[in-house]
Amino acid sequence: MRHLLSTADLSHRDALAILDTAEQMAAVGEREVKKLPALRGRTVVNLFFEDSTRTRISFEAAAKRLSADVINFSAKGSSVSKGESLKDTAQTLAAMGADAVVIRHGSSGAPARLASSGWIDAAVLNAGDGTHEHPTQALLDAFTMRRHWARLHGTESTGTDLAGMKVLIAGDVLHSRVARSDLWLLRTLGAEVTLVAPPTLLPFGVGSWPCTVSYDLDDALAARPDAVMMLRVQGERMDSAFFPSVREYSRRWGLDDVRLDRLDTLGLKDTIIMHPGPMNRGLEISARAADSPRSTVLDQVRNGVSVRMASLYLLLSGENSTDRTAQEQKR
Amino acid sequence: MRHLLSTADLSHRDALAILDTAEQMAAVGEREVKKLPALRGRTVVNLFFEDSTRTRISFEAAAKRLSADVINFSAKGSSVSKGESLKDTAQTLAAMGADAVVIRHGSSGAPARLASSGWIDAAVLNAGDGTHEHPTQALLDAFTMRRHWARLHGTESTGTDLAGMKVLIAGDVLHSRVARSDLWLLRTLGAEVTLVAPPTLLPFGVGSWPCTVSYDLDDALAARPDAVMMLRVQGERMDSAFFPSVREYSRRWGLDDVRLDRLDTLGLKDTIIMHPGPMNRGLEISARAADSPRSTVLDQVRNGVSVRMASLYLLLSGENSTDRTAQEQKR
Amino acid sequence: MRHLLSTADLSHRDALAILDTAEQMAAVGEREVKKLPALRGRTVVNLFFEDSTRTRISFEAAAKRLSADVINFSAKGSSVSKGESLKDTAQTLAAMGADAVVIRHGSSGAPARLASSGWIDAAVLNAGDGTHEHPTQALLDAFTMRRHWARLHGTESTGTDLAGMKVLIAGDVLHSRVARSDLWLLRTLGAEVTLVAPPTLLPFGVGSWPCTVSYDLDDALAARPDAVMMLRVQGERMDSAFFPSVREYSRRWGLDDVRLDRLDTLGLKDTIIMHPGPMNRGLEISARAADSPRSTVLDQVRNGVSVRMASLYLLLSGENSTDRTAQEQKR
Repeated sequence: MRHLLSTADLSHRDALAILDTAEQMAAVGEREVKKLPALRGRTVVNLFFEDSTRTRISFEAAAKRLSADVINFSAKGSSVSKGESLKDTAQTLAAMGADAVVIRHGSSGAPARLASSGWIDAAVLNAGDGTHEHPTQALLDAFTMRRHWARLHGTESTGTDLAGMKVLIAGDVLHSRVARSDLWLLRTLGAEVTLVAPPTLLPFGVGSWPCTVSYDLDDALAARPDAVMMLRVQGERMDSAFFPSVREYSRRWGLDDVRLDRLDTLGLKDTIIMHPGPMNRGLEISARAADSPRSTVLDQVRNGVSVRMASLYLLLSGENSTDRTAQEQKR
Repeated sequence: MRHLLSTADLSHRDALAILDTAEQMAAVGEREVKKLPALRGRTVVNLFFEDSTRTRISFEAAAKRLSADVINFSAKGSSVSKGESLKDTAQTLAAMGADAVVIRHGSSGAPARLASSGWIDAAVLNAGDGTHEHPTQALLDAFTMRRHWARLHGTESTGTDLAGMKVLIAGDVLHSRVARSDLWLLRTLGAEVTLVAPPTLLPFGVGSWPCTVSYDLDDALAARPDAVMMLRVQGERMDSAFFPSVREYSRRWGLDDVRLDRLDTLGLKDTIIMHPGPMNRGLEISARAADSPRSTVLDQVRNGVSVRMASLYLLLSGENSTDRTAQEQKR
Repeated sequence: MRHLLSTADLSHRDALAILDTAEQMAAVGEREVKKLPALRGRTVVNLFFEDSTRTRISFEAAAKRLSADVINFSAKGSSVSKGESLKDTAQTLAAMGADAVVIRHGSSGAPARLASSGWIDAAVLNAGDGTHEHPTQALLDAFTMRRHWARLHGTESTGTDLAGMKVLIAGDVLHSRVARSDLWLLRTLGAEVTLVAPPTLLPFGVGSWPCTVSYDLDDALAARPDAVMMLRVQGERMDSAFFPSVREYSRRWGLDDVRLDRLDTLGLKDTIIMHPGPMNRGLEISARAADSPRSTVLDQVRNGVSVRMASLYLLLSGENSTDRTAQEQKR
């Protein structure tokens, strides 16, 4: 792996490598000494063209735990806003010594363009691009599911995939890069995926995606998923004519208290509730659902740091640079 | 101590522990090597819902001198501004591995809610909440007074309190969290406090506070205080009907050149002038007063870093985690 | 050297000292281990009254490679915007333990005022002040030229200056601090400088500057410069009555494809094209010129980190503090 751009092109082997490395990173976080020297002297730039404090902080924490130096670059008020091209910005960062560029961009495909352009040597990590992908989010979701199921069965999670698991993803799929990244990765790892959304919030062409599509959340719950992932409703989109009203959305596509209780009624005692955060409590998820023992919301956040540590570690000390890293770790 | 939320509930013993530890931290700052490894691998998050560059930088410098990693989280443009609850924000930060959360919030009580909620394990440090408290400011004020008086008498400051000292605090007490935090701490440490303010800028119920209240700065100066602390006038409040005009404020409640000279006339050669900063020169304090040898304004800033180092150190390597720290320091 | 404020008062010896030290710093960057312990425990504050992500990041990367702690202070939303004086801001930063203050300010002379005022002990580095100076930009330009010519002649660059070299600087000289800093430094180092600009964009008094002045870019190219530096057009100034239209500017004072090809026609095979960035492709420089093998734009960025490392290193571990550094490096 040179870059982490998308889960659509992530092989089963590479996906497992990241998840397994993340297990080791999580173990570090759980021990007393939380800091590894692995990336000392490396520079990670957070290049954020859109605000996303949550994702930025997670990458920042991950890089710092690996002893990398972190430089935050918010495009607001920068030369980017004075019309500088992505190419010039990227080359500038690379020339300043960036070893990895974590990029969040409003345009789908911007990270791929950065990586494939030959403009920079640095590893590129996609931290969310338009409505396209958010691969580390998908990896942390898969990591969270895998850990949960391993614990459930008293087995080791390392080395396993999600074969046979049933995942339900519900909400505004049309605009969700999380839904896309999750779908591709979950399929690669062997899970079955059902998407549930209002008809107006499903993308054109969803019929050819490798998943089941439903308009009815209750039907989908009755199909006994192992995990129910609620997507965030983007408030700014609620005005659109294609969007149901808040009341209708919550009633038909929200995981409210009634549906939470139905999980019990259905005997789904091990089904987890997931959400990428930040949550709109009372809209796509009720407060009781968010805080219930089924909820893995905080595990997802915690695992996000481990998965991002693993991604940075594998990209910056991988095959291309094995000698380099080996030398440094001797010190 | 688990958290540092308020000086109202800070015991005499805990207050002295912080001040005494700050003496050691100050000694480090004065030596050649300014950095201690004490908090290596710990993460301190500055969670600022209000801008306060000065306080944020002081905590950041303090944490970095203890080798902690610092992550700055400005609520502006974050998911908080998209309506995320304090609870979800806090839990997210904790899940990402925050060991301490330094919080500045516009609502009185937000830090206490964070700490008492059971939402997070991290230590919570109040960096200013509404008109409620600003405990590290009070601690640095007390530290500055104690050092000054020890130097004056050629004694050690460590282990001593402020018994018998007379402190005058003047200005917009109504809106001042600094005045509140100072008052509770100074009383705990044995000092006598006089508050001076325009009648409209005193809080309801001040009569029951453990201090003398006056409307006349000249009378209060004649009572021979050991320290005169001028509060900052918040420009945005000057429009209020309850606020005197700038001219009147300065003339009646400002420490102008005439009053500065009166300190000499009164024979108060050891009385110091304090201000939490940033100063409105020419409003609550004259430029000459701010720059006079009596002024401890810069000592306060300097001591702020020491006091915050001490607070972080005691909270993060205190009784709950002694083993952990001991192990780390062996490395 | 105590401060780095201007190239006008930089001696030949000090300029060479910075450039030669930067050579060593560049060598570090090219080796596997990119981090030096030289400034461990030192604090560098980036005090930016104007946005300049590019310059801020370069200083931040430089300081971190020397193991210094970096604190970013953007004046926006700070107490500065509440009316605090530069003096109080500076003294506050110094009291918090800043060893160096990197200052960017809209007013010409602000860094010099800071340095000469006696307000602070910290080293002051000018990162651009009004239309006055931007000394580290000039140093990185000179460094880039020196390296290029040494490589061309197969010699060592260390110890040499720019005697006999011909440099053409073209564009909005009137508003350019880069042009000024470049001119003074290039002259000190022995280069000949020609300024080319629209008549309305030349400063009053340019006739007394130690350089040739021309209004015609083609004439100036015909004089066979070794380096052609294109200044950035500040978009916000284009509305001014004194400014040519975009079309006219580009045609008469831009390095377009026609002029790029003329460099070949003229047989100037070793002439380099420089730009301080960020570039307005298609305005003062064509995309083909910016990306041509002649372009040193990315070398300039890369060298910027080395030059800033050298500046910080020499200021913070110079004569005043030799013992201190020596002690620390023993650890």
